[in-house]
Amino acid sequence: MKVDLSKPILDRNERFAAENRALFDEHGVFVLDLLASPGAGKTSTILATIAALRDRYRIAVIEGDIASDVDAQKIKAHGVPAVQINTGGACHLESDMIRRAVDALEIAEIDLLIIENVGNLVCPTDFDLGEHAKVMILSVPEGHDKPYKYPNIFARAEAVILNKYDTMPVFDFDENEFREVLRRLNATVPVFPMAATKDQGVAEWAEWLAARVESQRARTGA
Amino acid sequence: MKVDLSKPILDRNERFAAENRALFDEHGVFVLDLLASPGAGKTSTILATIAALRDRYRIAVIEGDIASDVDAQKIKAHGVPAVQINTGGACHLESDMIRRAVDALEIAEIDLLIIENVGNLVCPTDFDLGEHAKVMILSVPEGHDKPYKYPNIFARAEAVILNKYDTMPVFDFDENEFREVLRRLNATVPVFPMAATKDQGVAEWAEWLAARVESQRARTGA
Repeated sequence: MKVDLSKPILDRNERFAAENRALFDEHGVFVLDLLASPGAGKTSTILATIAALRDRYRIAVIEGDIASDVDAQKIKAHGVPAVQINTGGACHLESDMIRRAVDALEIAEIDLLIIENVGNLVCPTDFDLGEHAKVMILSVPEGHDKPYKYPNIFARAEAVILNKYDTMPVFDFDENEFREVLRRLNATVPVFPMAATKDQGVAEWAEWLAARVESQRARTGA
Repeated sequence: MKVDLSKPILDRNERFAAENRALFDEHGVFVLDLLASPGAGKTSTILATIAALRDRYRIAVIEGDIASDVDAQKIKAHGVPAVQINTGGACHLESDMIRRAVDALEIAEIDLLIIENVGNLVCPTDFDLGEHAKVMILSVPEGHDKPYKYPNIFARAEAVILNKYDTMPVFDFDENEFREVLRRLNATVPVFPMAATKDQGVAEWAEWLAARVESQRARTGA
């Protein structure tokens, strides 16, 4: 007999995720889980999103990393509440880590909570944190063939940010092939070309996100 | 009582890894486990390494990916034996996968076996495949802060390839800070600046690798 060791871990994760989501809904908070490879620009994208939406919404951030708190420090430097989770060696965040991080935030004073997951295109995909949307970033230098190799995350994402778009001339990135393979995995997913550190293409992404925040407020009566 | 579920998995992995290493040593094969983020240039580095060393050594490649065989096809197109492992959803290769892949190769006719691990800076670090060296690639677009966030892999690598070095002017990469943080994790590790697709810096890396292949041959009497 084979025992699937991953099942009880996922069951436990689902239970805490449902509790997290109930808490977020009670307070009308929209929660985004942001996934990407190391160095694709997760923190830069969060900073650009904060700049675009901080006048409209109260934003907070949970930073997930194996080690260090450099990302949380960067966010806090912009006057936005941020909690750093260090996973030790773990390759993804789990819902009980989020629960504990949320305890360190004033949940009643947040409209939009952004979770930066560990830099990894594989493991975070399967873990529900209680978020309302998983969004992924692919950066141009990583190459257009990534949906072939990491199909699950591209299939699951509700939006794809194509970051470092300004470096397109430097790299051999076939955007048509990328979009075609992506469509096969995820027919209707929006793609947002962006250069987060140059404030290019941020407005379109921010409007998509704002629409999701609004619909969460309408749905929960917050 | 808490049961550490990861322990029996790692014990099992160590056992097969030891068997793999014994087989490789018996045939005088030097085995490299190549680790990096998605899109850092693992396959390009392997192709550049093949071009540099194919006249001196008989090379074979094992490609690890969640899905697809695009990488193995690229290697085979250069007339080099390649086996593709698809892990399904798994985020790293394990030693029993390598054992099965080696069965599909002519081990007696290989001097250098290169394993391209799944694109992931976290999970592959802890899994011994029976290789003789783990080497990692960091690409310049990923940023100089990666050793802070993913310290284990930088501490464990026996060499670090700094790939896409030609794009240094395009990105905000502080090479001094990178080297300083790396030294704290791994005092003597060599760093090879390289642009694999442009054949820049490949010779220095290839000589390091050739020296390791030679020392394996001397050690095993192959």
